Amino acid sequence: MERGKKRLMDLKKLTTVEEMEAATAQLLETAAKVGADTWQQRVKNQTPHCRFGEEGTCCRICTMGPCRITPKSPRGICGCDVHGIVGRNYLRFTAGGSATHSDHGREICHTLYQTRPDGNYQVKDPDKLIRIAKEWGVETEGKDIYDLAHEIAEMALLEYGKPFGTQRFLKRAPEHTQKLWKDAGIEPRAIDREVSCAMHMTHMGCSSLPEALIRQSLRCGLSDGWGGSMCGTEFSDVMFGTPKPIDTEANLGVMEKDMVNIIVHGHDPSLSEMIVFYANDPEMIALAKEQGAKGINVAGVCCTSNEVAMRHGIPMAGNFLQQENVVLTGACEAIVVDVQCIFPALGPLSKCFHTKFVTTSDIARMPDSEFIHFSAETAGENAKAIVRMAVENFKNRRPELVNIPNIKQKATVGYSVEAIKK
Amino acid sequence: MERGKKRLMDLKKLTTVEEMEAATAQLLETAAKVGADTWQQRVKNQTPHCRFGEEGTCCRICTMGPCRITPKSPRGICGCDVHGIVGRNYLRFTAGGSATHSDHGREICHTLYQTRPDGNYQVKDPDKLIRIAKEWGVETEGKDIYDLAHEIAEMALLEYGKPFGTQRFLKRAPEHTQKLWKDAGIEPRAIDREVSCAMHMTHMGCSSLPEALIRQSLRCGLSDGWGGSMCGTEFSDVMFGTPKPIDTEANLGVMEKDMVNIIVHGHDPSLSEMIVFYANDPEMIALAKEQGAKGINVAGVCCTSNEVAMRHGIPMAGNFLQQENVVLTGACEAIVVDVQCIFPALGPLSKCFHTKFVTTSDIARMPDSEFIHFSAETAGENAKAIVRMAVENFKNRRPELVNIPNIKQKATVGYSVEAIKK
Repeated sequence: MERGKKRLMDLKKLTTVEEMEAATAQLLETAAKVGADTWQQRVKNQTPHCRFGEEGTCCRICTMGPCRITPKSPRGICGCDVHGIVGRNYLRFTAGGSATHSDHGREICHTLYQTRPDGNYQVKDPDKLIRIAKEWGVETEGKDIYDLAHEIAEMALLEYGKPFGTQRFLKRAPEHTQKLWKDAGIEPRAIDREVSCAMHMTHMGCSSLPEALIRQSLRCGLSDGWGGSMCGTEFSDVMFGTPKPIDTEANLGVMEKDMVNIIVHGHDPSLSEMIVFYANDPEMIALAKEQGAKGINVAGVCCTSNEVAMRHGIPMAGNFLQQENVVLTGACEAIVVDVQCIFPALGPLSKCFHTKFVTTSDIARMPDSEFIHFSAETAGENAKAIVRMAVENFKNRRPELVNIPNIKQKATVGYSVEAIKK
Repeated sequence: MERGKKRLMDLKKLTTVEEMEAATAQLLETAAKVGADTWQQRVKNQTPHCRFGEEGTCCRICTMGPCRITPKSPRGICGCDVHGIVGRNYLRFTAGGSATHSDHGREICHTLYQTRPDGNYQVKDPDKLIRIAKEWGVETEGKDIYDLAHEIAEMALLEYGKPFGTQRFLKRAPEHTQKLWKDAGIEPRAIDREVSCAMHMTHMGCSSLPEALIRQSLRCGLSDGWGGSMCGTEFSDVMFGTPKPIDTEANLGVMEKDMVNIIVHGHDPSLSEMIVFYANDPEMIALAKEQGAKGINVAGVCCTSNEVAMRHGIPMAGNFLQQENVVLTGACEAIVVDVQCIFPALGPLSKCFHTKFVTTSDIARMPDSEFIHFSAETAGENAKAIVRMAVENFKNRRPELVNIPNIKQKATVGYSVEAIKK
């Protein structure tokens, strides 16, 4: 326990907000130089925000409106009051988040379904898979690990849509908590059903009782936390290995001036794992050297950054609010994204530089990007094509725009509950 | 064909907008008298509407915002432009509608799963059930019709959440159309998955390419029209009988001054069918007479009105915009609702009269209502309790507020494609 605490404290000391801000400030000058837009400017443009939107007191759910609650108009056209409107907006917020996280988990389950001994994805932690199978009451004795993986993947996919029953992983919670959920009527059923149910409840002429809307927010949230997201986490570990504490570096200074820099950004390790693999491919490294680079450097941004840091020690170039900065260094050959937290701003921004903004998922299609459809079935060839595109882009750098802030810190990632307990 | 056309034309002649408006005008005077709010007043209070909301040019999807598109702020904080924002809002609109219609269909499938020869719900059109079973490749020979109903119900419920494949009913479309859908990549997968997928695509940092958002709107819409709603329609017919053209009456004048008036409002025939059944129960009619009424009159509002009109000739008291009017007659003992299109205004409005506003579904909980939870398992006792509550409320009428407009028209409902073809 003490060791875990100490590590967490070290981490806090090493990457401070001030240091990240210092790196950012340097790059805003480059943005001004090339005439690029940044979120710092867009926040100013969008201030002040709409008060109704901020407070959740306007309703755009049906076409009789939009309606806004004011002292002169205390109810919407349907008669819904401010409590109902705020409750509905809150539940739709929750449904959006739950659907999103869980859909990422679904992709992981689909990838698990595609594992093959000689395929793009393998079972790297068979013990964990067997442990989950036993937890779910599945016979494991004498079963081929890939047959087991496919069986568990299909069961997990059914957690999203099964007609009866509640989430399997709920049984991991303390019995007292399970009882609280049961008594409150918020044990989540199929994950997608809770999303649809939330959308139905909030629709025109359905629920306006705030308690009912909040209750469904809880159920929908639990369906993600104990359903979709838990599947995503567990089966990522099964395929890519369960993380252990590992040392790496963080901040924009992890980008390398003399190397091809590929930034992975998004959430799904199915993509980033493959990019990391092909960035280490001797053929690709040789190609990078032909182009005049010293090699290939992969760094991460946002949640994907954590995925590859905690499994491979890949450095972390920045957080969510630094995603534009990696392009602003002028040294980013490609920013490769899958889903969630991707600023559409990366499209027009990348056009001010040589950077390839590579979108890969049907879920996150963006203007001004190169779309290379990535799927578990063709993961290897897709990833190799992306790495090749980045490497071949090295020669297009504009040296006058290259400015990598000389700021980085040590960081340790990959903590698990077990690690902290030690 | 000619006969069908003539009937449709007759219907148009019989119920005109002017006649409905005349009935409404009378009742707004009553509203003014009791100090009740009406939608006509609330529309005035909410005018002018917010321009951003009307045009779909504001985004409240993440907490960096809300953002609004103006000449000075052409992009949201994440960098999304107006096309992306309008596209996202449109897709969330579609997802809301699809989830809602389809969730109603799911309730019907659950009810089909509860059918029993001696239960609250039976199979009334076994030929239709067998036809659908054959369409779905299910062996029907020598199978008990209730076993078949449960098997088909479970298959239908899986259409909402199956991990693989597309909607079964798509095969009903012309082959040319099926090919168009396939080529466009919009064949809908599991119904709830399309809703979750829409919520994911529109979430912060996902799709901002309008074409992708519109494509998913189409897929999500198809998942309802050829999935959830088609299940709802088909299995309603299996349980409650396939409608045939039937004559009835429409407008507020169908309410009876000397009878207990029960209004059914919403969408799900599982509830309204039971209310109609118990309103014809000799025990309930005798109770009504004890209370001084001549009997029990059931009338419908909105979509549920059509459900009971086309199967039982139950008169139609009004459309969506007349729902407050039935209470304003002062002669409504109970307005019994399930889901969708229910004005929350009915809560406070009913408090100005003796009317019981009875909500019955966890999906549509509303303040100022009597909640009697209605479920397929206990449908009979729930419906009887509701009818009893209405009947016992007859004595609480305030005679000085009773004003039923003497306006009604003949109407013929229950057209099917087959009927029009004849």
